[in-house]
Amino acid sequence: MPEFLYGHWPVLECLRAARRSAEQLLLTETVEEKGAIATIVNLAKERGVNVRRVPRRIMDDLVPPGANHQNVVMRVGAYPYVDVEDILETSQKRSERPFLLLLDLLKDPQNVGVVLRVADAVGIHGVIMQERRGVEVIPSVVSASSGAAEHLNITQVTNLVNVMKDLKSQDIWLVGLEIGPNVPPIDKTDLNIALGLVLGSEGEGMRRLVRDTCDLLLALPMRGNVASLNVATAGSVALYAAWQARGWHGWPPAQN
Amino acid sequence: MPEFLYGHWPVLECLRAARRSAEQLLLTETVEEKGAIATIVNLAKERGVNVRRVPRRIMDDLVPPGANHQNVVMRVGAYPYVDVEDILETSQKRSERPFLLLLDLLKDPQNVGVVLRVADAVGIHGVIMQERRGVEVIPSVVSASSGAAEHLNITQVTNLVNVMKDLKSQDIWLVGLEIGPNVPPIDKTDLNIALGLVLGSEGEGMRRLVRDTCDLLLALPMRGNVASLNVATAGSVALYAAWQARGWHGWPPAQN
Repeated sequence: MPEFLYGHWPVLECLRAARRSAEQLLLTETVEEKGAIATIVNLAKERGVNVRRVPRRIMDDLVPPGANHQNVVMRVGAYPYVDVEDILETSQKRSERPFLLLLDLLKDPQNVGVVLRVADAVGIHGVIMQERRGVEVIPSVVSASSGAAEHLNITQVTNLVNVMKDLKSQDIWLVGLEIGPNVPPIDKTDLNIALGLVLGSEGEGMRRLVRDTCDLLLALPMRGNVASLNVATAGSVALYAAWQARGWHGWPPAQN
Repeated sequence: MPEFLYGHWPVLECLRAARRSAEQLLLTETVEEKGAIATIVNLAKERGVNVRRVPRRIMDDLVPPGANHQNVVMRVGAYPYVDVEDILETSQKRSERPFLLLLDLLKDPQNVGVVLRVADAVGIHGVIMQERRGVEVIPSVVSASSGAAEHLNITQVTNLVNVMKDLKSQDIWLVGLEIGPNVPPIDKTDLNIALGLVLGSEGEGMRRLVRDTCDLLLALPMRGNVASLNVATAGSVALYAAWQARGWHGWPPAQN
């Protein structure tokens, strides 16, 4: 089923990543071809994508209510999910210890998008998401990730716990992120290891079996008056803590 | 001028913090008094706040378009800004080295709210915001902070650079957060110092004079495909890095 990506970054990164079919680029009929729009149109033409001008109301109908399409919508093929094996291969190709992110039933596209954007920023090798009941990589997720989702290796699995057991048998350490005073803080353990960081859902956290399958639980400390942190914020901080432990490997990027 | 806070957490934390006048609590006429609503109503009654039932359409008109008021709106007095001196006094009272956050013209209420929520979580002593052109602590900021703004010391200043010079003369180190490969990463310097973390605005970053007035610039590394991070995410990571450097001082909180 075709999907409709919207907004400058999601459309641009989809074209740059060139991982899924781009079927048609739609522009609001009144918008000028300059700035980001010009970049997008040029890239679309290079890739042989048909470009069409349509009235604003048609554009508005193609995106979620209230979403800002910035005069650009692109009809694309399904999101290119990969397999767990592809993710582990990425680690090998980069000659880096595995650096994975596991999401247990996150539900809010905004949160998932923010986490994916950070996962891209820290150079994660892949993201493993529990299928069903959790969110999928729908266009609003791609938007919230500023297009980063288009570049990431993401897999959906039917049974996260089974995959976790597989990863453990391959000597990958699974570290679950908790918020609360009863587990050690995130810097207590050297995270410069073959690592899978596990995040639980908004509100409920990890499901019990997922939590029990982790090798280790670490906490994001909190001392404020408000008793919780958004999972996207907590996940972002933890991803950066892990990359810091890996010595910012891969940064700064090599100059061309 | 009265303001209208909305949503469970903002209203609840405003009542808990008890720093600004609460004039009237409005509930949708059909909502049941249970869960969070019951907690709010009880606290409001304890504080002698008048509680009134109104039709949903009146509630909807009191909040920004599209905002979710969760059936609770509270008419309150102006946000209780403090002075820079109050913030420094908080450091002294806690016998901690100053731990401040400076915001240079952030514009998006959502970003400011997220940063404030994290500032509360890491126990920041106060937040200094450039007045005019930047965002103020309006109800949508309080909402995005999940009510954390109600507990924080926040000051608005007319000239951020002058205040920065004052802080420097009091031996507070001002560290500006950059994104880019030309400055050292955030863990390169021991942040366990009298610290003011400076964040620039969305898109443009710090104004040049603000940047030049910093004692030190540190970068949040990035190695991904998408070339930027949201300022709220970057600020959250930096605030946690600073608190980590301070040995998670104040955590876990003492049990009562």
